[in-house]
Amino acid sequence: MAVGQNEFPKMLQVSGITLGTACAGIKQTIKDDIVLIAMAEQSTCAAVFTRNAFCAAPVHVAKANMTHQPRWLLINSGNANAGTGKQGMDDAQLSCAGVAEVVGGQAQQVLPFSTGVIGQPLPVAKITAALPAAFAQLSAGLWDKAARAIMTTDTFPKGVSKVITLDGHSITINGIAKGAGMIQPDMATMLAFIATDAKIAQPLLQSCLAAAVEQSFNRITVDGDTSTNDACVLMASGCASAPEITADSEYYQIFADAIMAVCKQVAELIIRDGEGATKLMRIVVEQAKTDEEAVRVGKTIAHSPLVKTAFFASDPNWGRILAAVGRAGVDNMVLEDVQLFLDDVCIVRNGGCADDYTESAGQRVMKQEEITITVKLGRGQAVQEVLTCDFSYDYVKINAEYRT
Amino acid sequence: MAVGQNEFPKMLQVSGITLGTACAGIKQTIKDDIVLIAMAEQSTCAAVFTRNAFCAAPVHVAKANMTHQPRWLLINSGNANAGTGKQGMDDAQLSCAGVAEVVGGQAQQVLPFSTGVIGQPLPVAKITAALPAAFAQLSAGLWDKAARAIMTTDTFPKGVSKVITLDGHSITINGIAKGAGMIQPDMATMLAFIATDAKIAQPLLQSCLAAAVEQSFNRITVDGDTSTNDACVLMASGCASAPEITADSEYYQIFADAIMAVCKQVAELIIRDGEGATKLMRIVVEQAKTDEEAVRVGKTIAHSPLVKTAFFASDPNWGRILAAVGRAGVDNMVLEDVQLFLDDVCIVRNGGCADDYTESAGQRVMKQEEITITVKLGRGQAVQEVLTCDFSYDYVKINAEYRT
Repeated sequence: MAVGQNEFPKMLQVSGITLGTACAGIKQTIKDDIVLIAMAEQSTCAAVFTRNAFCAAPVHVAKANMTHQPRWLLINSGNANAGTGKQGMDDAQLSCAGVAEVVGGQAQQVLPFSTGVIGQPLPVAKITAALPAAFAQLSAGLWDKAARAIMTTDTFPKGVSKVITLDGHSITINGIAKGAGMIQPDMATMLAFIATDAKIAQPLLQSCLAAAVEQSFNRITVDGDTSTNDACVLMASGCASAPEITADSEYYQIFADAIMAVCKQVAELIIRDGEGATKLMRIVVEQAKTDEEAVRVGKTIAHSPLVKTAFFASDPNWGRILAAVGRAGVDNMVLEDVQLFLDDVCIVRNGGCADDYTESAGQRVMKQEEITITVKLGRGQAVQEVLTCDFSYDYVKINAEYRT
Repeated sequence: MAVGQNEFPKMLQVSGITLGTACAGIKQTIKDDIVLIAMAEQSTCAAVFTRNAFCAAPVHVAKANMTHQPRWLLINSGNANAGTGKQGMDDAQLSCAGVAEVVGGQAQQVLPFSTGVIGQPLPVAKITAALPAAFAQLSAGLWDKAARAIMTTDTFPKGVSKVITLDGHSITINGIAKGAGMIQPDMATMLAFIATDAKIAQPLLQSCLAAAVEQSFNRITVDGDTSTNDACVLMASGCASAPEITADSEYYQIFADAIMAVCKQVAELIIRDGEGATKLMRIVVEQAKTDEEAVRVGKTIAHSPLVKTAFFASDPNWGRILAAVGRAGVDNMVLEDVQLFLDDVCIVRNGGCADDYTESAGQRVMKQEEITITVKLGRGQAVQEVLTCDFSYDYVKINAEYRT
């Protein structure tokens, strides 16, 4: 199940970035399960990783290799190489060495990423055996195949492609990802790869990515379970003809906004493919004192199983939303100041059900596949948005029956 | 569904405490839905209330009346009187006035409690009309009827009765509750009433209750949704022949331990009746640096839908438990130091699956109705326990279909 029509878009090529895929047979033998991404020599690369204290072996290796001017990414699906102890670290290193041998580079310039089952040894030999095939394929046109090769329980491949113009020169930004956020069973979990042909120094690229992730991937949640393998990479090949983007250039904000927009679109695709999802809920918290407070209220609503099951049932059960706001841990909140809207329908005002609310108006909104919940706290000016999906029988089914 | 056999026990009488029930027809007309509890004149009374910022009208009134030496409790099921604005406050006051008139006392000495649907006006007239019938019934033997009258979606009435001996005098402690914790659909929610015939001053009784609640009701969770109406009351009639319990008396600790034991037993009954529950999970976090850290790790595991669905499926999916420990927000946790046990079976050691672990040993434990998950953090001496239940199709069913 997924929310909406989610056709894979026509992806433009990003000059200086090539991709190749192959089937290593990690978990099955019918689909490609490894992706090799090569960056042109002058590329810069930024990345953010999971905050889970027990991050997977490839996360440790990728973090360490970030300081060696990465040139290649190796991604495998089917096995997370997490909870695998020292052997897992050795395996992650071995897979980087395998790439180095095939491409004729340094193992330290390879960033490894794994997604799939936790706690099983990574079949390194299968991966290295498949690398020559992936290497032979490297081309700028394989975004579609790459998006498919990184899927695990995703029901559709996720891609976004965007062009902006800086000083008459076009810059392309592509993003692919696999989901579904923090919720995949034994799957670990969200990986997103963004690439552009812009020229931009690494520290600036990193701060650009950090800002974008904070407002996109860090604003989605399916069930609050942060995986051990989450990562988001932003590559900039510098191959476009546009001038270098510097912190004080007039183009920086345009570029940063475009990266943000791509990250938000990719993040939304992940929620649309949340496990068992039948509805997309956009939770907008307004009139908060601070951004942090707005996010906290939004996430408390988004994590509430009572709220999520009510939306699955198309039940405008505002008592559950209000109770979630009330337990978000915001000091001195005043119930009488809080307003609650489902799309444009005001449902709570003055501490209770709004006078002009009708059950039929609430039902009309709740029947939609996409719903905006707006909470006005009446405390300040801060606004933040959190995306989530509903909680269905299929969520329990997918997660309970995964290994049976 | 519920975990285990949960027959209502034979409840002793608590001298100085009488109960009466009646059917006010708040939501239906086939079962009693109001309870009146009267305390002897010299009684003391302690209470703790929900920390939800948007607490219900009766919670506001009960908190205010705590300073007026409460003599009567009025509890209704079927309507939470929450999210009802100013009218809700008036209704809560009116129901106290109704009790005062029937018993010939002061409205300020009445503590009101409501549980049931949020956001609908409390039918005060129905309640006051039924009060004389409840008053006429007042007797020390009606604990069973009271436990049934406060039920909403509970599948069994919950009661615990215990006797301790102080200096040759017996002291009785009774507890009844309705659940199921924070998870009832539109139901708001956990109410627990503990009574004893011990003689003890109010401030000491209050600190005794606060300590017991912290280790019992505050250590259970079904889905983390704290209700707007949660409350726990401890009444002490002083009618036993035992000497007064003072802070420096040798009997204080015995009494406090007994109150703690009753609270823990009642709390466990609530989890056994968690919505859709098929398994009781006792999460013991050992070797933590602080109690706070141990509770945080325990609750993060207990709140994880991935962990809860795995237990529903009897799947010893240790990767999910480990990932939950890793995202609990404990600084400088070392994966290699963490050990994980299902009952006596060690499943994680040295950063990965334990060498001597076998899938059949894990399966054997997971098939049980009651499972202890022990997490040893390898950081210190603190130990804390959290109780929860699994997450089943029926949880989604009960919460999605409640209003259809």
